[in-house]
Amino acid sequence: MEFIVETLLRVDRSATSLRNVKIETQVNRYAEGSALIHMGNTHVLCTASVEESVPSFLKGQGQGWITAEYGMLPRSTHTRMKRESAEGKASGRTLEIQRLIGRALRASIDTSLLGERCIRIDCDVLQADGGTRCASITGGWVALWYAIEGLMQRGMLVTDPRKQAVAALSVGVVNGEPRLDLNYEEDSACDTDLNAVMTANGHWVEVQGTAEGQTLPRSTLNSLLDLAELGIPELFKIQSNAVRLA
Amino acid sequence: MEFIVETLLRVDRSATSLRNVKIETQVNRYAEGSALIHMGNTHVLCTASVEESVPSFLKGQGQGWITAEYGMLPRSTHTRMKRESAEGKASGRTLEIQRLIGRALRASIDTSLLGERCIRIDCDVLQADGGTRCASITGGWVALWYAIEGLMQRGMLVTDPRKQAVAALSVGVVNGEPRLDLNYEEDSACDTDLNAVMTANGHWVEVQGTAEGQTLPRSTLNSLLDLAELGIPELFKIQSNAVRLA
Amino acid sequence: MEFIVETLLRVDRSATSLRNVKIETQVNRYAEGSALIHMGNTHVLCTASVEESVPSFLKGQGQGWITAEYGMLPRSTHTRMKRESAEGKASGRTLEIQRLIGRALRASIDTSLLGERCIRIDCDVLQADGGTRCASITGGWVALWYAIEGLMQRGMLVTDPRKQAVAALSVGVVNGEPRLDLNYEEDSACDTDLNAVMTANGHWVEVQGTAEGQTLPRSTLNSLLDLAELGIPELFKIQSNAVRLA
Amino acid sequence: MEFIVETLLRVDRSATSLRNVKIETQVNRYAEGSALIHMGNTHVLCTASVEESVPSFLKGQGQGWITAEYGMLPRSTHTRMKRESAEGKASGRTLEIQRLIGRALRASIDTSLLGERCIRIDCDVLQADGGTRCASITGGWVALWYAIEGLMQRGMLVTDPRKQAVAALSVGVVNGEPRLDLNYEEDSACDTDLNAVMTANGHWVEVQGTAEGQTLPRSTLNSLLDLAELGIPELFKIQSNAVRLA
Amino acid sequence: MEFIVETLLRVDRSATSLRNVKIETQVNRYAEGSALIHMGNTHVLCTASVEESVPSFLKGQGQGWITAEYGMLPRSTHTRMKRESAEGKASGRTLEIQRLIGRALRASIDTSLLGERCIRIDCDVLQADGGTRCASITGGWVALWYAIEGLMQRGMLVTDPRKQAVAALSVGVVNGEPRLDLNYEEDSACDTDLNAVMTANGHWVEVQGTAEGQTLPRSTLNSLLDLAELGIPELFKIQSNAVRLA
Amino acid sequence: MEFIVETLLRVDRSATSLRNVKIETQVNRYAEGSALIHMGNTHVLCTASVEESVPSFLKGQGQGWITAEYGMLPRSTHTRMKRESAEGKASGRTLEIQRLIGRALRASIDTSLLGERCIRIDCDVLQADGGTRCASITGGWVALWYAIEGLMQRGMLVTDPRKQAVAALSVGVVNGEPRLDLNYEEDSACDTDLNAVMTANGHWVEVQGTAEGQTLPRSTLNSLLDLAELGIPELFKIQSNAVRLA
Repeated sequence: MEFIVETLLRVDRSATSLRNVKIETQVNRYAEGSALIHMGNTHVLCTASVEESVPSFLKGQGQGWITAEYGMLPRSTHTRMKRESAEGKASGRTLEIQRLIGRALRASIDTSLLGERCIRIDCDVLQADGGTRCASITGGWVALWYAIEGLMQRGMLVTDPRKQAVAALSVGVVNGEPRLDLNYEEDSACDTDLNAVMTANGHWVEVQGTAEGQTLPRSTLNSLLDLAELGIPELFKIQSNAVRLA
Repeated sequence: MEFIVETLLRVDRSATSLRNVKIETQVNRYAEGSALIHMGNTHVLCTASVEESVPSFLKGQGQGWITAEYGMLPRSTHTRMKRESAEGKASGRTLEIQRLIGRALRASIDTSLLGERCIRIDCDVLQADGGTRCASITGGWVALWYAIEGLMQRGMLVTDPRKQAVAALSVGVVNGEPRLDLNYEEDSACDTDLNAVMTANGHWVEVQGTAEGQTLPRSTLNSLLDLAELGIPELFKIQSNAVRLA
Repeated sequence: MEFIVETLLRVDRSATSLRNVKIETQVNRYAEGSALIHMGNTHVLCTASVEESVPSFLKGQGQGWITAEYGMLPRSTHTRMKRESAEGKASGRTLEIQRLIGRALRASIDTSLLGERCIRIDCDVLQADGGTRCASITGGWVALWYAIEGLMQRGMLVTDPRKQAVAALSVGVVNGEPRLDLNYEEDSACDTDLNAVMTANGHWVEVQGTAEGQTLPRSTLNSLLDLAELGIPELFKIQSNAVRLA
Repeated sequence: MEFIVETLLRVDRSATSLRNVKIETQVNRYAEGSALIHMGNTHVLCTASVEESVPSFLKGQGQGWITAEYGMLPRSTHTRMKRESAEGKASGRTLEIQRLIGRALRASIDTSLLGERCIRIDCDVLQADGGTRCASITGGWVALWYAIEGLMQRGMLVTDPRKQAVAALSVGVVNGEPRLDLNYEEDSACDTDLNAVMTANGHWVEVQGTAEGQTLPRSTLNSLLDLAELGIPELFKIQSNAVRLA
Repeated sequence: MEFIVETLLRVDRSATSLRNVKIETQVNRYAEGSALIHMGNTHVLCTASVEESVPSFLKGQGQGWITAEYGMLPRSTHTRMKRESAEGKASGRTLEIQRLIGRALRASIDTSLLGERCIRIDCDVLQADGGTRCASITGGWVALWYAIEGLMQRGMLVTDPRKQAVAALSVGVVNGEPRLDLNYEEDSACDTDLNAVMTANGHWVEVQGTAEGQTLPRSTLNSLLDLAELGIPELFKIQSNAVRLA
Repeated sequence: MEFIVETLLRVDRSATSLRNVKIETQVNRYAEGSALIHMGNTHVLCTASVEESVPSFLKGQGQGWITAEYGMLPRSTHTRMKRESAEGKASGRTLEIQRLIGRALRASIDTSLLGERCIRIDCDVLQADGGTRCASITGGWVALWYAIEGLMQRGMLVTDPRKQAVAALSVGVVNGEPRLDLNYEEDSACDTDLNAVMTANGHWVEVQGTAEGQTLPRSTLNSLLDLAELGIPELFKIQSNAVRLA
C-alpha cells in the first residue's frame, strides 16, 4: 500500500498547481476554428465547424446553436479501446461528455446573436492522461473563438456574440489531500472527482462531483470548489494569449 | 410575461418544501425488491433483481455490484416520446441517468460484502413531472433494501452490506428564488438545475449542477447546496417508514 | 409427473371461468385515453395517444389509422428480461404482438371517420402471468374508447367512428382439458395455445392457434373456438362498465 | 368497381383448386437438403443446413432443434423492396413468418431423436405472388426431409425422427366467396386471410386467421377451415412424389 | 502436399479457358430487366429495377445513376453463412463488392442520357463457386441492357444511353501457372488474385489485384493482364447472344 | 473550362514528383509503435498496438496476424463529415480501405514468426488532401516496424518477422497527363485513379485502378504502372530514415 501512496506523490508540482498547459491555434487548414490543447500528456484536437443551419427544434427562431462531439482515438489510452464506429454506437460516457461540452460552451456565447447557424465543436483525444473532458472545454472555447472571429471579419455577424471565456478543471481528493488537475493515475486512485466549469467573470457553469466510494462532507466539497476557483483563472490567461495572436 | 411568472408561483407549497411523497413497497410479485414512488405527479416503478453473477471486470474478486437501468414509458410525458427499443438504442440522456443512479446506489452498500452477485435496479417512469432521476434514486434505494433484506433472511449473506440510506432531490433557481424539488414546469423555466444525492449521515454522493443560461455566482451555488441539505432529510424519514414495514 | 399435474389443477376457478378482471380507467394524466387492466396477476398499462398525422402510406386520403406498440418492463417476468432498448431492437415476439394488437383494435373503429389522425396504443406490461397480448387488446380498447370520446366531446369528429368493442382471450388444452384464460404456468405446460379476438357482435377478428408439440384434430379445434365464444362476452360486460363511467 | 371484380374472377381454376405446384429437389450442391417450390408465380428456394450444435437453451439435453429463416430478394415483388441487410434489421413481418415456419416444421419431427443437432431451414423468395409463407412451409418440409435422409444414410441417426409431412395453404374470402390458395391480387383484395398448417394425418398445427376489415361469423370461419382441409392433402401428394425420387 | 496439387490440376479445361457460361434472360416477371448467370457452379440472379428518382447528390442535374447491391443467400456457400439482415449490417466485403459492380456498370452507360432516373442492379448469389463479383458484373450488364431496352421501347428515352458491354473475369497464379476464371478451390489456394473489368472495345474499367502472400513481379502482373484480355472477349460473345434474343 | 485546367496545373512540382513527405516517429506515449506521416497537406496518425491473442480463425495455429482500422476525424475534410460512431457503422469506403491497409502490411511480415499475437494498426486521418489510404500504408509500416522492434528488444521474438518495407502511392491521369501522388483537387478531377502498393524489392502487393468515367487503353494502364514504380522507391528512402533513428 505504501508503494501506491509513493507513486501518487506529486514530485513535479504542488497539489494546487496545474500541469504544463499549451494551446496551439489554427492547426487545421479546413476548420473555421481549431486548437490543439496539451494539458500535460493529455492532448485534444478541437475544431469548430460553422454550419448554416440549426437543429430542427430551433428552425425559424432566428437564433443559433453550439453543439459538441467528443471522441477518443483507439490508442489514445494505455490499452487500445475499441473504435466506437466498430461498436456501432457512442458509449454512455461519450454521450455524457459531449452533452457537457456543449452546455459549457453555450454559456460563453449569446446564441441569439449568432443567426440561424450552428457551430459544431469536435474534440478528438489524441492522447489521454486524465481530464480529457475539461481539456476539451478549455480548448474547444479557443476553437469556437476563432470560428466566430472569422464570421466577424467576413461581416457575417452584426454584433459579437462572444460573452466571456469558459474553461474547466478537474479536482479531487487523493491521499486525503485535495488536488488540482488530476492526471490519469490520480484520477483512477481517488474516490472523489469533481469537474468544474467556470466563466472568466468567476461564475459557475457546471459542477459535477462524484464520490461513489468515499462520500464527502460539505466542508470537503467546499474545499474542492475553492480549489477549482483558484486554478481555473490560470487557464483564462493561457486562453487569452491563444486568441491574442489572432 | 407576468402571466408566465404567475404560473410559476408556488401556491400549494413553499419554496423550501417537497411535493407529496409516497412510497408503496413490494408492488411486484416477482422482483426480489420493489417500490413505486410518487413525488407529486412523478411516478417511478423501481424493481431490484438479484443475479448470481457479476460483470466480467469483477469476476473472481469475491465482491458484488449494483447497477441501474432507467426508462420512460412512451406516454409518461406530455407528448408521447418514441419507444427507445424502436429507436434502436438508449439516448444519451438515458445512459447518463442510469450511470448516475448506479453510482448513487453503490454508495449505500458495501459491495465487498455482497458476494459475487449483481443487483440490478430498474427504474421505469410511469408518469413524469420533473425530478425523475432523483425519484429513481430515492425509490431505488427502497427496492434495493428489500432485495438485500430477502438475501439476509434466506441466510445468503453473512454480514449486512447496507451502509446507509441514499436519497436525491433537485433544486434550482426559479424567478430568482432558490426552490426545492422542482416540477416539470419549474424545471423547464429555470436556467439553473442542480441534482443532489446525499447519504443519511449528511455526506454528499453526487452534485450535478448546470447553469447553461444564467451562470451562477458561488454564493448562489452555496444556497442551492444548503437547500438540498435541508430537504433531503425529509426523504430519509419517508424511506425509513417504507422499510420499517418489512 | 403427478406433482406437475397437481400444480396445474385449477383450485380457484373452473376450467371455463376467467381470472379476476379489473379495469381502472384514465390512470395517466397526459394520455388522451388510458386504462390499467388486471387479469389475475397480469397487469398491463394501456395508453392511447392522438397524433394529428397519419403514416406516409395514408397521407392525403382523408382517413385515420390505429396502431399499437407493446413492451414488457424488464422485471415484469419471473426472471428479469433484458431491456429491448439495450438489445438495440424489439424482438420478433414483440413485433408480432404489436402487429396483432393493431389489427385487432382497427376492427373496432371505422378509420374512414377518424380524419387524418393516428391513435397510437401503447401497451406496457407491468407484471406478466400469461395472456398479456389478450389483456393488451381488451385494455387497449378501453384506452382507445376514451381517446375517441375526448375527440367527440371537443367536437373534433363529426360522426362517432367507434363500431363495437373488441376483446381477446387465450384458450388451450391443459391436462387434456380445454381451459379458458390460461395463466403463465398453464400456458407453459400446454402444447396448444389459441388466442381469440372477437367483436361484441359475436364475430371473429383474429384466431391464432399453435399446436407445435401435440397437433390438434378438428374436433378439439372446434371445442377451443366454442370455449372462446363462451368466455369473451364476460369481457365485454367489464369493458362496458369501464366506459359507462366516463 | 365492376372492373376490379372482373379481374378477381378466377378464370383458370375453380375457387377450391390450387395453382400449379411444382417442387424441384436437391437444387443446391452444398446444402444437406434443398427444394425449389413453385406455387403458380410464387417461387421459394428452401435449403436445410445441418449444424452439429443446438441453441444455448437446449445445450446438454440430448435433443435437437429445427429453426427457420425467411427472406425476400429485393426484386421478388412488383416494386423493389429495400434489402433487409441495408435496413439494419429484419422487419416484424419477416420475424413473424420465420417463427411460424419454425414451429410448423418442428411439428413434423421428433426432435428428441435428432441428437444435439440443429437443422436450419432457409426460405428465400425468388418471386412472390401471394402465399410465400405457406410455400416456405411446404417446400421447407421437403428440404428438411432430404437433410434427415442424408443423416440416416450416413448412419448418424439411430431412429428416424421424421413423424409426418407438414404443408400449408392460405384461404380467404374474395368477392364473398371462400377461395383456396390466394394469389397476390386476391390476397390484397380480401379482408379475410387465413393460413392453415396441417399434418399428413389430418391434424392442425397452426391456424392464423385475420379479418381486420370485415369480421367473420363463426359459420364462415368454419367454411374456411373446411376448405383448407380439402386442399392441403393435394400438397401431401406432391411432397410425397418429391421425396420418393430420393 | 502432392494431394493438394493434384486436386488443383485442371482436368476439364485448360489454364486459359473459361468454365461453362450460360445466361438466362428475363427470368423475373416483375423486374424491368433480369438475368440468371451460370459460370460453372457459380449462379447469380441479377435484376435491374428502374426508379424514377436519383440519389440526393444528383437531384436537379438532369442526369441518371446506376447503382448495385450484392448479397449471398445463406446457403450459397459450402458452410452456411449468417444472413446479413440478422447480422444487422452488410459486411465490408459486401459493401466493397457492390461499390465495384456499380462503378463497372456505370462505365457502360452514358448516364447523362438517362434522365433523372436510377437503375438499381441487385445481384444475389444463389450458389457460389468463386468469381461471384465478376459474374455479377457480367450478368448485371445483361439485366441492365434489358431494363434500358424497355425504356427505349416505351419511348421514355430520346437517345440510347448504352455505350458498350462490360464484363469481368478473375485471373490468378495457381501452382505457379497463370489461370483464367478461378473456381473457389483455386481462388482459396492462390496467393494472387486479380479481378479485371473491361469494355467491349478493349479498354480497362477496373483492375483489382491482390498478392498478399506471394508478391508479384511486374512481369507476372503483365501476364495476368494479358490473360484477362484474352478471356473477357469470350464473355462479350455470350452477352451479345443473350441480348440478341430480345 | 480553361479555368479548371488552370487550377489543375502543377506549379510547385513536376507531374512525376511527390509532394513533401515527412514522417515523425514514436509520437504516442502508449502505443507500441507510432508514426505521424505528412504527405503534403494529408496528415495521418498511425499507431501499432500489440495484442497477445489472435482472431478466432487463427487460434492454436502458432502464428500471428496484422490488421488495420482506418478513420477520418470529422473535420479532416473541407466540409465536416458525420462521425461514424454517430452514424452507427463504418461506411463501405472505410471498410474497403482498412481491408486494403491490412492486406498491404501483412505482405511486409512473416506472420508465422510472430507468435499468437495480433498487431493492430490504427490509421486516423487528421487532415485529408488526397491519398489518405496510401499515406496510411506508408506510415502504418513505420508504426508496425517500431512495434516489432520493441518485441525484438524485449526478447519476445526469436526471429525477426520483418521481411521488407511496403509503401503506396496513387497515380492518375489529369488533363491527359499521367501524374504521381495526386492531391484532393487532382483526385476529384481525374477519371482514372490507381492505387499502387509495392514492396522494397520492387514487387507488387496491390493494384487497384478505377476508370469509371474515361476507360483506359492498356498502354495508359502500363504508363500508370510505370509511374508508380518510379515514385514508390522515394518513399522507401524516407521510411528507411524514419526507422534508422530507432
